[in-house]
Amino acid sequence: MRTALIIGTGLIGTSAALALTARGVTVHLRDRDTEQARTAAALGAGTAEPPPGPVDLAVIAVPPARVAPVLAEAQRAGVARGYLDVASVKGGPRRELADLGGDPRTYLGTHPMAGREQSGPLAATGDLFEGRPWVLTPMADTDTEVLNLALELVALCRAVPVVMDADAHDRAVALVSHTPQLLSSLVAARLESADETAVRLCGQGIRDVTRIAASEPRMWLDILSANPGPVADVLAAVASDLQETVRSLRALESADDAKRHEGSGGIEDVLRRGNSGRSRIPGKHGQTPTAYATVAVLISDRPGELARIFADAGQAGVNIEDVRIEHATGQQAGHVQLMVEQAAAVRLTEVLRERGWAIRQT
Amino acid sequence: MRTALIIGTGLIGTSAALALTARGVTVHLRDRDTEQARTAAALGAGTAEPPPGPVDLAVIAVPPARVAPVLAEAQRAGVARGYLDVASVKGGPRRELADLGGDPRTYLGTHPMAGREQSGPLAATGDLFEGRPWVLTPMADTDTEVLNLALELVALCRAVPVVMDADAHDRAVALVSHTPQLLSSLVAARLESADETAVRLCGQGIRDVTRIAASEPRMWLDILSANPGPVADVLAAVASDLQETVRSLRALESADDAKRHEGSGGIEDVLRRGNSGRSRIPGKHGQTPTAYATVAVLISDRPGELARIFADAGQAGVNIEDVRIEHATGQQAGHVQLMVEQAAAVRLTEVLRERGWAIRQT
Repeated sequence: MRTALIIGTGLIGTSAALALTARGVTVHLRDRDTEQARTAAALGAGTAEPPPGPVDLAVIAVPPARVAPVLAEAQRAGVARGYLDVASVKGGPRRELADLGGDPRTYLGTHPMAGREQSGPLAATGDLFEGRPWVLTPMADTDTEVLNLALELVALCRAVPVVMDADAHDRAVALVSHTPQLLSSLVAARLESADETAVRLCGQGIRDVTRIAASEPRMWLDILSANPGPVADVLAAVASDLQETVRSLRALESADDAKRHEGSGGIEDVLRRGNSGRSRIPGKHGQTPTAYATVAVLISDRPGELARIFADAGQAGVNIEDVRIEHATGQQAGHVQLMVEQAAAVRLTEVLRERGWAIRQT
Repeated sequence: MRTALIIGTGLIGTSAALALTARGVTVHLRDRDTEQARTAAALGAGTAEPPPGPVDLAVIAVPPARVAPVLAEAQRAGVARGYLDVASVKGGPRRELADLGGDPRTYLGTHPMAGREQSGPLAATGDLFEGRPWVLTPMADTDTEVLNLALELVALCRAVPVVMDADAHDRAVALVSHTPQLLSSLVAARLESADETAVRLCGQGIRDVTRIAASEPRMWLDILSANPGPVADVLAAVASDLQETVRSLRALESADDAKRHEGSGGIEDVLRRGNSGRSRIPGKHGQTPTAYATVAVLISDRPGELARIFADAGQAGVNIEDVRIEHATGQQAGHVQLMVEQAAAVRLTEVLRERGWAIRQT
């Protein structure tokens, strides 16, 4: 690939442009907001000048609802040999393209699983896709040349290609991304009218469950509006489990032993299924998640405390796999939890204790 | 307080005993499993010998369902001047105690908001309660002397006392702890039968939402069984919002503009209410959460990488407020996100760049 045209210079388009430019591809930038295309160009993402002739690959990086019309127009103008989009849903745009008389052979629907809280070209970065899955949804009639151009783009962005059926992709993101977002919002929404004292009792569990409830509503509305069917299907299944859970809890309130026993079985079933589903989420490097040992260290709120802990841990030659900082409400001190391989925990604890840290070992 | 009797030497009882012993209180340990009481004594939590006469305070640290009978028996034997329990629900034990003819004046229901993944005396630690809220539920007929003994216990454990009505406490923990647990399990349960490819697309959002779905089912069954009514009430409210959300998504699938507009409004409403509920969760030191700036640094998987970053950050005099390590599926490298005060982000980025780190600034 020597030339590319990026249509839509938001976060994703500009990030891809930065990665391609850095690897020697000549990148042209286009946006219906010309100011935004010039901003991307000023950031070193390419040139805002139109290409002199057809480029190798056009990347349509516009919101899901606009993909099909923009794509059909670009194909009619013959701006490129191959076309791909990067929207978060894949079934709809393909069907709309067919309705608009677009060419399915030169188009490949793709979805890089990367993003961030900010949007726009100023938030873009050439390493946005590094190590992230990038879904490709080729069809029987997709040109092999276009598939290879897409694979080259994914490689240049240092992402990991994953091939999926378009509708299977939409169901998958409904399950692993869109449903968790809505349920996080629904749990957080319950706090809106909670007593101040109740809110003071919030611990690490609810903090984790509701972290993504802080996401930008407009962006999520766009994403969810483009994939309503598959998301509704997963949510309906959760709703049915939830009704069953409420019934089990009500049975636990009963004076009847048999009913209580049944309720207890229902709740235990939900908890066990949760264990089993959670255990399927891949750990680091796509392996089965390792059960790490946790070493909890008491820290004060002074600058440099974490630096000292990590320096001391580094001395022990221990690789820290994950970190969690837990601040207690109303207090200056907190615990930092260091997750390490089981075998390294004893050594890490010893070394940190020697250096005067207060440790709570798990 | 000079003498205490801990009845039930599991995680909570033994941790409280360790804290009291460390601060000079004479602690007697009792457990119906005498082996377990001896283990706690061997850990330095006190003596497994019975007290020669009534102690100042008896702490009933047995599972919720056994609190009332154990308490009533202890009161009949007159083992202490004051009695408290530490179970995760408060309304039920108090009502049962009345049924068993116990004395409500010398009993105070309490709940330390602390715990860990492990249970039993071997998991106990004297600093378990440090900086954590410890709920006290005094009634009109509670002796002031007993309330003061409880406040002394909380102070000796270095926890933060929070006074609440017993039923309000049970509703609060249903909202901020029990409901998030079940919804995390319900989201994770959907992954049980998911395609392997779908599971590969799991990102940080679903990881956070389902972290607590890995919790121990038996322990959570005990907790939920003791508080079924308030949990069912909150879950029923979530279920009603969820049904509404499914309806909004189905409306978004409609060909009718007015219906789609209505569906869109419904989804936006859920997302905005989620924002507003999430923003109520207290930040560090109980303040309104600060919006921290995130500085993301690319790291390899070698030991000592984090140590080097934190040492370099320490040089910049920047206090790191929170850390998140994000591993990309199938890759050796990952990003570590450093959360710092807005004002410190530019300086931290500069310093880390100077020292050769690849930074993605937010």
